[in-house]
Amino acid sequence: MPELRKDPVGGRWVVFSPERQIRPQRYHCVEMPATRPEEDPFLEGHEAYTPPELYAIRQNGVAPNGPGWQVRVVSNRFPALRVEGDLDKEAVGFYDRMNGIGAHEVIVETPHPNLVLEKQSLAGVTRVLEACRARMIDLSKDTRMHYALIFKNHGPRAGATLPHPHTQLIAMPVTPIVVKEKLVAARAYYMGKDRNLFEDILKAERRTGDRVVFENDGFTVFCPFASRFPFETCLMPRRQSADFQNSSDGVLLLLAEAIQRVLGAYASALNQPDYNLILHTAPFRRSRHQDAWTTLDADFRWHIEILPRLTEVAGFEFGTGFYINPTLPEEAANVLREAVTNG
Amino acid sequence: MPELRKDPVGGRWVVFSPERQIRPQRYHCVEMPATRPEEDPFLEGHEAYTPPELYAIRQNGVAPNGPGWQVRVVSNRFPALRVEGDLDKEAVGFYDRMNGIGAHEVIVETPHPNLVLEKQSLAGVTRVLEACRARMIDLSKDTRMHYALIFKNHGPRAGATLPHPHTQLIAMPVTPIVVKEKLVAARAYYMGKDRNLFEDILKAERRTGDRVVFENDGFTVFCPFASRFPFETCLMPRRQSADFQNSSDGVLLLLAEAIQRVLGAYASALNQPDYNLILHTAPFRRSRHQDAWTTLDADFRWHIEILPRLTEVAGFEFGTGFYINPTLPEEAANVLREAVTNG
Repeated sequence: MPELRKDPVGGRWVVFSPERQIRPQRYHCVEMPATRPEEDPFLEGHEAYTPPELYAIRQNGVAPNGPGWQVRVVSNRFPALRVEGDLDKEAVGFYDRMNGIGAHEVIVETPHPNLVLEKQSLAGVTRVLEACRARMIDLSKDTRMHYALIFKNHGPRAGATLPHPHTQLIAMPVTPIVVKEKLVAARAYYMGKDRNLFEDILKAERRTGDRVVFENDGFTVFCPFASRFPFETCLMPRRQSADFQNSSDGVLLLLAEAIQRVLGAYASALNQPDYNLILHTAPFRRSRHQDAWTTLDADFRWHIEILPRLTEVAGFEFGTGFYINPTLPEEAANVLREAVTNG
Repeated sequence: MPELRKDPVGGRWVVFSPERQIRPQRYHCVEMPATRPEEDPFLEGHEAYTPPELYAIRQNGVAPNGPGWQVRVVSNRFPALRVEGDLDKEAVGFYDRMNGIGAHEVIVETPHPNLVLEKQSLAGVTRVLEACRARMIDLSKDTRMHYALIFKNHGPRAGATLPHPHTQLIAMPVTPIVVKEKLVAARAYYMGKDRNLFEDILKAERRTGDRVVFENDGFTVFCPFASRFPFETCLMPRRQSADFQNSSDGVLLLLAEAIQRVLGAYASALNQPDYNLILHTAPFRRSRHQDAWTTLDADFRWHIEILPRLTEVAGFEFGTGFYINPTLPEEAANVLREAVTNG
């Protein structure tokens, strides 16, 4: 029997129809064409192919924009938003527009063209997170920006166009609708119960353990009760913090371990699926942005979602905002937990 | 320079970054493997492969569940929701669930395995719409159902698993979040201005004409100001009506023409892209459902969206609810208008 489950944060329903799993699935596996080395803008020695670096972790005494780096952040060559200019909001007849002020950066995770995150050393993954934190802190000082999203598209079905491992950051002059929804839900819950919504989710998950995939001292990884996608996971910090960029080195190291373990489980249990990784954090908070779309320190908690792309977003999802998921999170967690343990 | 545009109905921003269009795109075209005739459950003569028919348009005097039909509606063999049973809503510890009551039907558009909608006769497309209307009217009598969504997934990138042309209908016991958002926006606009939001969009589009693709006496087809996808179109009825199922035969004929022309333009101008077609209509309205999520007859208008799937929904879209679109709707409309005219 199918069942509907409600996401306690986003308020959307997900239809779980396990019977659809037995249908003749025609998953189309799409191989990303390998980039020829001479075309890979992120290779060591190709630093001149990209805009100048905004941040890098390098060997001591090595000059910027040349070889000798471990992580490197540059502006996207084809940015969705541009950092130059003043923000200009206006009406266009009946409609509303603004110019595309923002930042679109690429965090090149490694000089190696195929060294995916789960195969990096723990120190390597931690360096990527340090670069993300450094860029968030820097962009939070730009008063035009309300929000910065860190995300990763891995593989063509997840929207990647280059196979060289990289993460992206887009900073923007408005607070995204998904973030507003989460903030509003978190605030309402906190006001109603004097408790943190994310802490209560964490408690519920740890109490049953049915959907928990992995834990260390800093993070609990679980398949959400109302997962939109098969094998979706949430990486939740156990200590309350609204802002990712305030994370200590110790927290980043524990997060690196959690990411490495769950991506390793995907690779071994699901044959390296394409995926999106999304970091949900609070909007930048300054007195001038203290509007309805901010957070008390106590009500919102930053967290990471990983969405393997095994099913398509289709007409039902666009028409409803709901999702159809053939795999219950309890089953998904069983599979991933076993893969983490044996990994 | 990129720009951001706001969708006046959904309230989300879309980032238009035309410069990204020149990047080395690696659109992966995925061919749907042809179904072998013996495996196609929707072929004439294979009526026993499906659950019994719920509705059909047949030659006079031909018995149900055998050959001799032109359009045929059956229950999905692998339904996301099931029609049997009472609705049961409950808490599961911290979370909320309900059982999967609903209906999941397939409108088989033709007995021919490759006769896509744009190649059908006008009478053929009209028959498909008549079947949709008949099923909506029937399901609106089931008091467990709050909403029925009609949609079409064409091609594997749009989530289709069978190539035989078909449309789907899912009726459900809750009003979808996307529908609620549209109803709330339409109501607020109407309350604030004493005018219909959709009528004002139509007027704005017809005044400039920059984004209009096709018009007949009943419908205006245009690329929305804040299109989420390249070449997205909206088919808007010019006469106010909240409920698709109240459409007259004359309106269905004009809608059939509009659908045929715009899908024909996609096929010729964009090389037959995969697409989702979504019918947005009001929730079923009865006194017992007269809650906040209904409509005055005057404020909401039913309409159709068609979303070609040339770009992926990726981390940015999941993290923000916003979209990045490399193609301005004015450019898209130019291309489609020319294809419609020469078609």
